[in-house]
Amino acid sequence: MTQTGTGAAAQPNSFRTIKTEILRRIRDRVWQPGELIPGEEDLAREFGCARVTVNRALRELADIGIVERKRRVGTRIAEHPLREARLEIPVVRTEVEARGAQYRFSVLSRDEVEVPETLRARLELPPGAPVLHVRCLHFADNRPWQFEDRWINLAAVPDIAGQSFETVSPNEWLVRNAPFSEMENDLSAAGATTEEAEMLGVSRGDPVFVIERATWLLDQPITLVRMVHPSSYRMISRV
Amino acid sequence: MTQTGTGAAAQPNSFRTIKTEILRRIRDRVWQPGELIPGEEDLAREFGCARVTVNRALRELADIGIVERKRRVGTRIAEHPLREARLEIPVVRTEVEARGAQYRFSVLSRDEVEVPETLRARLELPPGAPVLHVRCLHFADNRPWQFEDRWINLAAVPDIAGQSFETVSPNEWLVRNAPFSEMENDLSAAGATTEEAEMLGVSRGDPVFVIERATWLLDQPITLVRMVHPSSYRMISRV
Repeated sequence: MTQTGTGAAAQPNSFRTIKTEILRRIRDRVWQPGELIPGEEDLAREFGCARVTVNRALRELADIGIVERKRRVGTRIAEHPLREARLEIPVVRTEVEARGAQYRFSVLSRDEVEVPETLRARLELPPGAPVLHVRCLHFADNRPWQFEDRWINLAAVPDIAGQSFETVSPNEWLVRNAPFSEMENDLSAAGATTEEAEMLGVSRGDPVFVIERATWLLDQPITLVRMVHPSSYRMISRV
Repeated sequence: MTQTGTGAAAQPNSFRTIKTEILRRIRDRVWQPGELIPGEEDLAREFGCARVTVNRALRELADIGIVERKRRVGTRIAEHPLREARLEIPVVRTEVEARGAQYRFSVLSRDEVEVPETLRARLELPPGAPVLHVRCLHFADNRPWQFEDRWINLAAVPDIAGQSFETVSPNEWLVRNAPFSEMENDLSAAGATTEEAEMLGVSRGDPVFVIERATWLLDQPITLVRMVHPSSYRMISRV
């Protein structure tokens, strides 16, 4: 903090300045894990700012798990800090473009079928339910980036049946048009299957990064997808 | 919704009921992506509940990206719904125990050294800075679960130098005692190195799931760790 709370500050401290000062006190062990820190009014007086500014700083620190706030008790330095990262669910095109590469995709196959028995339980669909099976290959600068094998519940997303996928991929179409409230997202490493190896231009058994995702809107399944990346892929998250 | 908003409901609708009803209308295309929905007061009247109840339902739907709220404009059905999953950063012990397995760990090596030149830039440390290098193996039901290769900035976390790691692993100790405000978390698939293969009981080049994580408190690096799992591992997140 450039100005300590002497009240003589030319400019009142911003919530960012307050946030940084609180983090400094934690880093420098002025405030220990588990310790109850002064109330908002006391901090506002010390920092020479409005109480609402202190409140915003504490709220943001609570959001990332650095402090814990309890009504009628006050604010404590968290004993078990940050335990969550946000993992973005991007449109594949955006992800490729964000890396400065040129994106294109190609639809390898597209079939409207009755849900195969082997997938029925996983998709929680009735026997014979109509699904769209699409296989796509996504490229970054003409190199295979992701092989996508996707099943879509046509009862939930009937409009997708009329899409040509010439300019917009099934992934992007779904992100734009099919809201979901539930998601299961499983990440793993595997050896490439024969098909995956061929698609990605690697050898069978080579390590690949696998994302399996299923989404629902309430109790209605939307889509189940397996997305396979070569081992050069990094899934990056920042807090 | 079991009761529609006729005003004749025996019990006022809860925010969960309202939330489900809004999701139903989105699922059934009563409300389209991008559409501005009625205001809180109108919805409260229709649902026969307090405005604060509608507000809470909408707030929770905004948190998961289903609706977008703008002051003085109102609430819209999101055109680009949910784009984020929360990825928990668990204590390894907790993660193993949550799968119903028995956890134990073993410290393979522990050295206080000057930061190696190859790591210095990545860790953003001055030349010769003291670091603790720890290598651990974590087990689930006596099978190798994770091989951990970790560097800790002793200037940031001096207390860790006195820890024996007999009962509490470095991972767990850090989660409990070293808060951080910044994190980089990279996930990838790779072929096991000779050392990783030996530790995990797999063959060299076999697919492994790799988590590389670096944390900071403000500008001060805390730890850099590479955690390697055999290919049976799944990183699971739910929304």
